[in-house]
Order: sequence, then structure tokens, then C-alpha cells
Amino acid sequence: MARKFVCNQNEPVVQTKAGKLRGFQLDSTYIFHGVKYADAKRFQQPTPVQPWEGIKNALAYGYVCPMLGQDQPNNELMVPHRYWPLDENCQYLNIWTQSLDPNAKKPVLVWLHGGGFAAGSSIEHIAYEGENMSKYGDVVVVSLNHRLNILGYLDLSPFGEKYKNSGNAGNADMVAALQWIHDNIENFGGDPENVTLFGQSGGGMKVWTLMQTPAADGLFHKGVVQSGCIDGFMNQPKEADGTAIVTALMKALRIKDVEKLETIPYHRLAEAYNKVAPKVAKTGAYIGGNPLPNDWYVGDPCVVGFTEHAKTIPVMVGTVLGEFSFMPALPAEDKANKELIDQKIAKRYGDAAEELKALFAKAYPDKDISDVLFVDSVFRAPTIKFVAEKSKHPESGTYSYMMTYTFPYDGGHIAWHCSEIPFVFHNANLVAAYNEEGVTDLLEKRMCDAWVNFARTGKPSSEDLPDWPACVPGDEATMIFDKDCEVRHNYDHELVALHKKAAPPFWVRSDDDEEQQIQH
Amino acid sequence: MARKFVCNQNEPVVQTKAGKLRGFQLDSTYIFHGVKYADAKRFQQPTPVQPWEGIKNALAYGYVCPMLGQDQPNNELMVPHRYWPLDENCQYLNIWTQSLDPNAKKPVLVWLHGGGFAAGSSIEHIAYEGENMSKYGDVVVVSLNHRLNILGYLDLSPFGEKYKNSGNAGNADMVAALQWIHDNIENFGGDPENVTLFGQSGGGMKVWTLMQTPAADGLFHKGVVQSGCIDGFMNQPKEADGTAIVTALMKALRIKDVEKLETIPYHRLAEAYNKVAPKVAKTGAYIGGNPLPNDWYVGDPCVVGFTEHAKTIPVMVGTVLGEFSFMPALPAEDKANKELIDQKIAKRYGDAAEELKALFAKAYPDKDISDVLFVDSVFRAPTIKFVAEKSKHPESGTYSYMMTYTFPYDGGHIAWHCSEIPFVFHNANLVAAYNEEGVTDLLEKRMCDAWVNFARTGKPSSEDLPDWPACVPGDEATMIFDKDCEVRHNYDHELVALHKKAAPPFWVRSDDDEEQQIQH
Repeated sequence: MARKFVCNQNEPVVQTKAGKLRGFQLDSTYIFHGVKYADAKRFQQPTPVQPWEGIKNALAYGYVCPMLGQDQPNNELMVPHRYWPLDENCQYLNIWTQSLDPNAKKPVLVWLHGGGFAAGSSIEHIAYEGENMSKYGDVVVVSLNHRLNILGYLDLSPFGEKYKNSGNAGNADMVAALQWIHDNIENFGGDPENVTLFGQSGGGMKVWTLMQTPAADGLFHKGVVQSGCIDGFMNQPKEADGTAIVTALMKALRIKDVEKLETIPYHRLAEAYNKVAPKVAKTGAYIGGNPLPNDWYVGDPCVVGFTEHAKTIPVMVGTVLGEFSFMPALPAEDKANKELIDQKIAKRYGDAAEELKALFAKAYPDKDISDVLFVDSVFRAPTIKFVAEKSKHPESGTYSYMMTYTFPYDGGHIAWHCSEIPFVFHNANLVAAYNEEGVTDLLEKRMCDAWVNFARTGKPSSEDLPDWPACVPGDEATMIFDKDCEVRHNYDHELVALHKKAAPPFWVRSDDDEEQQIQH
Repeated sequence: MARKFVCNQNEPVVQTKAGKLRGFQLDSTYIFHGVKYADAKRFQQPTPVQPWEGIKNALAYGYVCPMLGQDQPNNELMVPHRYWPLDENCQYLNIWTQSLDPNAKKPVLVWLHGGGFAAGSSIEHIAYEGENMSKYGDVVVVSLNHRLNILGYLDLSPFGEKYKNSGNAGNADMVAALQWIHDNIENFGGDPENVTLFGQSGGGMKVWTLMQTPAADGLFHKGVVQSGCIDGFMNQPKEADGTAIVTALMKALRIKDVEKLETIPYHRLAEAYNKVAPKVAKTGAYIGGNPLPNDWYVGDPCVVGFTEHAKTIPVMVGTVLGEFSFMPALPAEDKANKELIDQKIAKRYGDAAEELKALFAKAYPDKDISDVLFVDSVFRAPTIKFVAEKSKHPESGTYSYMMTYTFPYDGGHIAWHCSEIPFVFHNANLVAAYNEEGVTDLLEKRMCDAWVNFARTGKPSSEDLPDWPACVPGDEATMIFDKDCEVRHNYDHELVALHKKAAPPFWVRSDDDEEQQIQH
């Protein structure tokens, strides 16, 4: 059926501080794509966009930051991608809203994409589209691109004052976006005093790094960390700086003047970096790629503690059961073969196998025991720690969740990294493998309700969910999102502690893939 | 609402000549993405894929051929894009079908994408998605990637026998895809003896170049050329060969052994080509980029005549009213200012202005006279010629159409290049700017009906359209697709003939854009 569409010379047009923008209306939603929120020279801090006369179009998504390597098409049913033209001039955001009334003051949700701090974009996953969430939740949804990898996170500070915060340029872009939102979102129907960051994987890390960034204080008010606490990922050495990696880069590029790094084509910079970074990393030196603790960014709250401001931020934090278990599911006949499953579990977990099985069965009595092969602790263990640390500050709520839904894909697949995103965005209709009659619609409603309610009030409770209390020290009250939802208390701590000790890292698990019939 | 989704270890799985493929089912449609139909070494002819054991996934679109330059986000409401990872290993096709019964024998429609022979992909436009057309029309829809630009169309034949047909490698990929379809489509519910090619812009040119390619005889049975006859585009000099351009390329790359061109990274090849090609082109020599008439490809039918086999192919051919008029629409107040419009028309068309206005008003009595500023003849003039030549062979039907619909975008925008595609694919729901209550649904039904009926029977007539006769010499019966549809006879020939003489080329028209309020 034909939808309502409006995009004429003067409608919908919104006044921003720098000038007028034209978007389009689709049914009840006003949509603005590719709004430039800042400009930036390579390795330098972002600056406000220059004012313009007349009306600028905001009808096309903006450039995405270039990557260090090219993606390969893969696992599209599990994580359906969108790619986009690349350019380091990438400070763009997108807006979906139900109102352009400056007095509407609707909650604002700002999506920070995943891909570590090295890859991804505001539109990389098909389900990052904000229309359905805005419409269903009557909220303003914003998503944004920013500088990534060595463009966003390479410390050149030892080489000149103008590079002072180059190690955090990508995060500085995000702060500039938040400033733009603070200054302009009212005219898009949003409340600049009620801004919630939500992000997944790298995006979740962005949420908590921005909580620890004084320059962002007051620009946002709540945070959702989805699969964003990750063991061994953000371990920039203390007192790290870019001397070693930048020196190696310049040598590889036969460059003597550091300023030349500002202008050489990115693909050459990336090629040289890919060559020298592994060697520099082996020495233990900093190689960039993630935010760098310095005067501007305080550092990991589980290491240095939460800032006074971060303590006041209500947070929702959680993971999914399988996380990096992207491998094919076990065939039904294998799952039914108890002996085979026992062998696999013993092979993977050695002496801990029997105890892990018992702990898994206790934590997840309704799941197939073979799922213990795919359960995650890389994300879950640091999430438990984050919740414990954050809940010491009861001045703001800390809410925990876990998604354990078994997807109707591949004969039944444990929830994988990114798999909660379409539910959160109310976008299950956009992703084939997330559709199960009698389940999808309710789970999508429950999850989107929780996110929207948290953004609106600081509490994720909803009429369709059991009572969801905040965590307190010693009691992690965790909302389990599945066919049925329930709150459980410290329910998997023993399992996760033992799994973390006994499990090989997820990246060596692919041995077992060869046994699968399906070739990926 | 949750959709029906199936993708399990053994369903849906289809046997092909080389091995088993697993796709997925969404509601009633079986979908296979990224099916490898051939392999090819650079500059050489495609070869069949190697057989495999077990089951291969067909769940992710395949690589897209690399381009000579990077796209910029632009005009997304008019032509909504999808980009994808690039690699010259790009011989992939996609299938949407309602049945996997080898006896179902449903009509097969094979989509050839646009972008000249240099760019684009089987998924570049959001509306290239085949699900809705397959479901609505109960047909098998196939789309495909193939080699492009200098990977698909660079003649190295003077440098060695193994490069004999390198000037048509991209078209040879398409023939390999048609062979794959011929050999395998039955198991996807399709009829290998009823295959219709349809393509737009470069894709339309692909249709008629394949009609003129004996190696493809019998592999397809009908063709639809959408905006695929273009003045001045396919003018490879007679007896052209690659001596000059390949010599210049090797010199620029400091390569003495031509075989080195087979292995150097594509981005360096493209960089060198972009540098030397304009200079070689100035000498009038061949620079590649389009199919090359040779022993394998007969050449433009309007120059060399239709092959005996091509004469037997029913063809539907047409254009849209504005084609390359992507510039902003005139504001309503400008359109209402008769004096201003007259000035603009006089400025553009000089002495021919008054006569053109009269001819336009006669051809399009219901359109605003300002549309004469944006009307196309670059595509329409050679289309008239193509129809005249093809209809000399009444053993197969030749059907003409023109889409004149004024879109509800920008205050009312003349139909632009690519704008018919979402209607043909029954995908108006995927593209915002194509939605107008009371119009979209019927126009989409009428156009998709025509394409599907033509594929099924060789005649595009449908219950919802006026009687649509084939063209005969001297009588171009043209179906006008608009809010109302009607058949008209030679209705615009005078207009187009004069416009072709009087109009400046479309690429210099942007002068006027500066007068527009909207900045693109």
C-alpha cells in the first residue's frame, strides 16, 4: 500500500544553528539523512560546521569513515549489512522524529554503532534504521558516523601540540555530535535535557568511554551498553603514547615530516599501518585504534573508577547468550546424540566439563545442554564486573539484561553478537532470520518498550515485562529476554566464572566447524 | 507481523550441476543469494565452477566488480543505493522463486543492472530486490553481477591469443550466467525454455548486445530494453583494438610484460587507466569500457542489422520522460511565472523554443509546459530508431512504452532515469519518493503485470491496461505509463526530432541549477 510521502521545496525544513535543512516525511516520521555535525582535519579536533544560506538537503546518508581492510560478504542472515561510500570527511548524523515542534521535547536516543573503534557505520546493520523505533516509541532517534581506526584513534601528541588529543579524535567527533544535538534537537521535536546513548559492541564501549569524558558531561543523561564490556579489548598500556607506532609508520612511508601524514592518501597510510602495527604491538607498545586515557578521557571505569558525573548516569547493560558464536548450529541429530555432545564438551573444557555442564543446566534449565559449547564469557564476565562497580552508586539506576532467545535459524541457533539489535529498534520485519510466529512480535515489543521507557524515565519497566528492579551491590537482578521473560538474581555468576577459566578463546573454537555439514 | 522464515540444515536445499546449495525461505519465496555461476582469470573467458561435496550456503550476496572511481552519496531519494564489498571474483547471481519443483516451469526473468558497462551491481538499487516481483507475478527472478569496466571490457587481443575476447569478458560472464540458468533453473522451479532478459540503462544495452551475440542464442527468449538505447554511448570505432590503450597503460605502469597486467592490484591498474585513458581517447582510439564488435559480438543492430536469431526475439523497449533530469524541480512559483518559464525555454532552445513548446503541448497536453526544459531525447531518439528497425521483423513482437508519471517529490518532479524500476519490480514500498495515494499501487500493478505477462507470453497486455498492439513499420504504438495509461501512435516523433537538434547536451544544463533555492 502506498505510504504518505512528503518532500517538497519547503517541507519538511528545519532551522539549525548553522542553516536550514530539508528532510522528508514518510507516513508520520520526519527523516533527515546525512546531517553534517562537524568538520575536522585529519588527526585534529572537530570544529563546528560553517553557516550557510538557503536550504541544504539532508536526503542522503553521509560518508562512512574508511576502514583498514575491506569486508567480505559473510553471514548476511545473521548480521545483514549495508555498505556505503567511504571518506574521512565523515562527521554526519541521521534523525528520525515524529514531530518538528520545538515544544514537543520528546526523549532522544542516540545510536553509537559497533565495529570496535575501527569499523562499522551508522547504517552498517540493516536494523540500524530508526524509523520504526521513532514511530513505535514516539521518540527522536539519532545515529551518527565518526572517525575510526587510525583516523580516529592514533596518538601523535609526542609530535606536536596540534595533535594533542588525536588519540581520541573519534570520540571527540562523538562529543561534537552530542553538542550539535544539544544545540539543535529541540527544532526536531527532541528534548536536549533527555538524551540517552545506546550502542552495541564497540558502540557499547563508546557509551561508557563517553561517560568517562568530562567534555561530554551534561550532553547526555543515560546510557545503554549492549555487549559493550569486553575482556582484553581496551587495554591501552598506562602512560601509552604514539612515539613507537608513529615513528614506525613514518619509516615505512619514508616520511621525515610528521605533517606529511596529514595529507598522504588514506589507503597508503592504512597499508603502511597494517604492515608495521603487528611488529610494534609485539613490543607491547601502543598501536592506537582505541580511545587513549589522557587529560581528556579518564579511562575504563572498572580500572580507574567512575567519574563523579558518570555515577549520576542511569545505565542499562547486558549481553546475549552466544555472542561470538557465529559458527553453524549443531545438526539436530548431533544434538540428540548425548555421547557425541559429551565428547565435544569434554574436548573443549577438559577437567571443567562436568562442572560446567551442571552449572549450565542450573542457569539455563530449558536450554539444550549442547549450548554450553557456545555460551559466552568474554563479554559476560566483564559485564558482571561493570554492573557490580556501577551499582555501588545508587544515585542512578543500573539495570542488567541477558538475551537468551534461540533463533529459528539453522535448526535453532544460540543468540549471536548483534542479534538483539533488530528487536531493540523494532525492526524484526527488516531481518529475515529473526521471524518466528508467536514469538517475534512480543519479544520485539518487550525489548523496544524497555529501551524506550528507560530513555523516557530512566527505568526500563513496562506493562509487558515482570517487575525489573535496579541492581544493588551483591544482587545483579537480570532481565532474561527470551520467549518468556523473567528476572533472575546472580543466576549465572558461577557458570561464567568457571567458563572464563576453562574456555579456550572464541577464536580457536572454529576447529569444530570442520565437522559441520554446511560450508560457510 | 512476524513472517514465515525457514533456513535449516537441509532446507531449502537445491541440487545444481556442481553441487548442493542452501538458501532460505521468506513467506512463500525461496531465496538464494550469491550463487557462483562461473570463475574467471583476469582478462580471460569464464569457466564453469568446480563441483563440490556437501552443501554450500547461498545466503549472502556475492562480491561486486570493482569500479574505476568511488561513488559519492547523492540523490538517494531518487535512486536509493546499496553498495557492497568489491572483488573481481564477482561472477555471482541471486534467485527468488515461488517453487522448487522441477516440473513447475515458471517464466524466468533475468535482471541485468545498469551503470553503463563500467559500474553498478545486481543489488545497487534498493528496488533490484526480486522477492516482490517473484511473489506477485509467480515468476522466477534472477539478478547477476559480472565483470565491468577494464576488467570486463579491455581488448588485449593484439597481445596474445589467450586475450582473444577480453574486450567482451563482461558480456561473456553474462553468457556464462545464462548457461548456468539454462542448466540449473529447472530445480529452482524455472523454465529454461522461457527466459526473459530485462535491464535498464547499461542493463538495457546488455539486453541488445546479448541479442547480437551468437553464443547466447537459445539461452534466452525475450528481452526488455529499459532506457537502454543511448545516443553516442556505444560508438566503438570500427576495427578498433586495444593496441593504443594497452600500450599506454603498460608505459604508465612501467610494465614490459603484458602478463603483469593480470596480477597487479586492481587499484593500481585503475589509477593508471584513469590517467592515460583521456589522452588516448583524444586520439580517437579505442579505450575499452564497452563491448567490442568482433567474431563473438556482432555489433549494434541499428548499425549492422539484427542477427537472424535476434529477429525472433520479442522485445519491449521504452524510456522515461525526463531521463537524466536529476536536477531539482522548479519551485511552484517559478512554474506559475509564465514569463520566467518562457525566458528559460528561450535561453535553452534558442530559435527552436516556440516550435518545441507547441510540439510539447501537443505530445503532452496535460503536463506543465515547464517540463519541456527537462524532456529527454538522448534516450528517446535512438529508442524510436530501435523500434523502427526491430519492427521490420514481424516474426516477433516489438512493444514500445514511455513512462511520463510526475513524481510526488520536490513539488512534482519529471520522471528520471531509473524511476520506473521500483514499479517494474513491484517494489514501490521500498522507495519513499515513489508513494502517492491512489496512484502508486495501480501504476505498480500495471507495470509489473506488463513485464510479467510479456515474460510469460511474449505480450505485455493485461486486464488493467488498454489494448497494447505490437509496433509495425511506420506505426510506433506506445503505451504511456502515468496516472492514466493509454496507447498513442508516433505521438512524439516530431518533438523528439526537433529536441535532439535544439537541445544542449544534458551535461551542460546544470547552469540553471544555480538558480535553484535547494542546494544539492
